[in-house]
Amino acid sequence: MKVICIVGRSNSGKTTLIEKIVPILKKKGLRVLVIKHAKEFEIDREGKDSWRIFNSGADVVITSKEKTAFIGRIPDELDEIVETFKDKYDLIITEGFGSSSHPKIVVLKDIEDLNRYRNVVAVVTDLEIDFQPKFKRDDYDGIADFIFSYL
Amino acid sequence: MKVICIVGRSNSGKTTLIEKIVPILKKKGLRVLVIKHAKEFEIDREGKDSWRIFNSGADVVITSKEKTAFIGRIPDELDEIVETFKDKYDLIITEGFGSSSHPKIVVLKDIEDLNRYRNVVAVVTDLEIDFQPKFKRDDYDGIADFIFSYL
Repeated sequence: MKVICIVGRSNSGKTTLIEKIVPILKKKGLRVLVIKHAKEFEIDREGKDSWRIFNSGADVVITSKEKTAFIGRIPDELDEIVETFKDKYDLIITEGFGSSSHPKIVVLKDIEDLNRYRNVVAVVTDLEIDFQPKFKRDDYDGIADFIFSYL
Repeated sequence: MKVICIVGRSNSGKTTLIEKIVPILKKKGLRVLVIKHAKEFEIDREGKDSWRIFNSGADVVITSKEKTAFIGRIPDELDEIVETFKDKYDLIITEGFGSSSHPKIVVLKDIEDLNRYRNVVAVVTDLEIDFQPKFKRDDYDGIADFIFSYL
């Protein structure tokens, strides 16, 4: 199991990139988990049973034949989240977590941003910059192949 | 860590019971997870980033300073779910899972339903039945105390 972080500024296209490469990685047989960092989020809906139980003070799992959801008062500590789920996946892609120590693919809109990250293993950009490996923003197959070979 | 199942027919009041006893158990210092069984459920909203990523084929975690959510293609196997989360909680209450081997509290609307379950440790009902311990439907403190002593 490997963790790789997709990092870059807000609106640099990280979500779209992940959305495009996941199906390619799935076709290669990988079980993929994406961990997305958010300043805040709401996922459940007021009044639903799961919402009522969460708001009573318990953390909640809802589970059916097809899928399982969890909502818990667990903070955004990447290592702990990875530890919880790592046995079930071959690859964990994070969106964000730029300050973690894991290998990073930077979606780059400004050349200077490259210096913000440690452990950069690839760059995704249409800018002319001197970094290898470098992928065009729409080279989803190339990026997915790179991640696959990285495993 | 202990698992206790709240079981009973649809609309017998399981969710309300759980919603009322969780704050009492939290006050006693317990970290509580509720696992709710559902025939099917939707928790995310079409068009959101997390929804897009899930629909691309990956399982998803969204995490912020306050909380963490997970949506995954993991089926409703109680033992596996308990195994994943057990280190983080003192008590796991399930809603449903009447056929599991864990101890059960039956919310009873019909006396005959009692025979449907193995390992019944308490009954919640306003019916006149010969079973001990038995709690009135609104005796939330009594039920919470019983669960606490059961741990």
